[in-house]
Amino acid sequence: MNSSDVLARIADTLEARKSAEAGQSYVASLYQKGREAILKKVGEESAETIMAGMQSDRDAIVYEVADLWFHSMVLLAHANIRVEDVVAELARREGLSGHTEKAARGKN
Amino acid sequence: MNSSDVLARIADTLEARKSAEAGQSYVASLYQKGREAILKKVGEESAETIMAGMQSDRDAIVYEVADLWFHSMVLLAHANIRVEDVVAELARREGLSGHTEKAARGKN
Amino acid sequence: MNSSDVLARIADTLEARKSAEAGQSYVASLYQKGREAILKKVGEESAETIMAGMQSDRDAIVYEVADLWFHSMVLLAHANIRVEDVVAELARREGLSGHTEKAARGKN
Amino acid sequence: MNSSDVLARIADTLEARKSAEAGQSYVASLYQKGREAILKKVGEESAETIMAGMQSDRDAIVYEVADLWFHSMVLLAHANIRVEDVVAELARREGLSGHTEKAARGKN
Repeated sequence: MNSSDVLARIADTLEARKSAEAGQSYVASLYQKGREAILKKVGEESAETIMAGMQSDRDAIVYEVADLWFHSMVLLAHANIRVEDVVAELARREGLSGHTEKAARGKN
Repeated sequence: MNSSDVLARIADTLEARKSAEAGQSYVASLYQKGREAILKKVGEESAETIMAGMQSDRDAIVYEVADLWFHSMVLLAHANIRVEDVVAELARREGLSGHTEKAARGKN
Repeated sequence: MNSSDVLARIADTLEARKSAEAGQSYVASLYQKGREAILKKVGEESAETIMAGMQSDRDAIVYEVADLWFHSMVLLAHANIRVEDVVAELARREGLSGHTEKAARGKN
Repeated sequence: MNSSDVLARIADTLEARKSAEAGQSYVASLYQKGREAILKKVGEESAETIMAGMQSDRDAIVYEVADLWFHSMVLLAHANIRVEDVVAELARREGLSGHTEKAARGKN
């Protein structure tokens, strides 16, 4: 793991939280509540992202997208999926669009 | 290439799509439809992520989280926000929690 | 004709659509696509309701809440649940709160 | 108002809550928090409806659709819109579909 890779580092932290006590960590309490509590948070953060977008409030958009992505990553961790798999899926799709595709292939 | 690089490259592509014709690109057509069309997609992809999560279908979770993040990035690009700002916000939060916190502070 | 009657009539129509060809009716095509297509619409209409609410656009709020309720009713019909059950649940809750509660109890 | 019209009665109750203290009533506290708190609840209840639908749990579907409709009605009340306007919009749409319209009218 590249130390600059923030998402991978957060995924590691989320993985480590699995052995924490629910009372000690927000994420540990979400894991304990289970899948539906996590998915409910994804729905909430999506609603808040939509609201921030409607207000064209740049700071709120950054904050809410960060919340949405964070809770997506809790979902991934809970399902034992690495965030790298999502990034690879995004890279794969990007690779399918012409000029960028070749550049991407060259780098990978 | 790490996750942050992939996201930055996708952000570059999304930026470049702003000068594309709506008929030539899915993203260009979303830009043309405007903010509400983009936010509606965020809502849709959130619903699909929740459905994939309820099915505990790993491939579907990866696919739908990728869709959710991609459309979040279209929202960011449309608002002239760089994905790096979201990643920095996530890093800032991670930096606030214990051991990882110190490592993050050392680097920042 | 009161609200409950309108909802019951719509529920009847939704029930009747179950025997329609998918090509003949929007609702029949939703049934054919199945549960997830219906739930995706609930998510979409919720996003649109949130957007209308953020714009404080009265006509849009009425329109989008109608869309949200309509697709909720398609979900109910698909699950063989009568809308009266939802209205009864709402009445049951209303009955639990003070003065209105007693009136409701007297009637029920 | 027909006394049997549950939705109109709930709308009356929601209207009356506008003069309640936030500490005395859940709905009054939602009003005080404002439009975004109400819209966030619409997003949450939509997510929970989708989850109930995915589980094909009839009781949960009834419960969550009731929650979704209730919070939609709080949104309507907050925007000074009567639920009858939503029901009229639903009736208008039903009436717009030709043959079904006449059949429906014939039955009532």
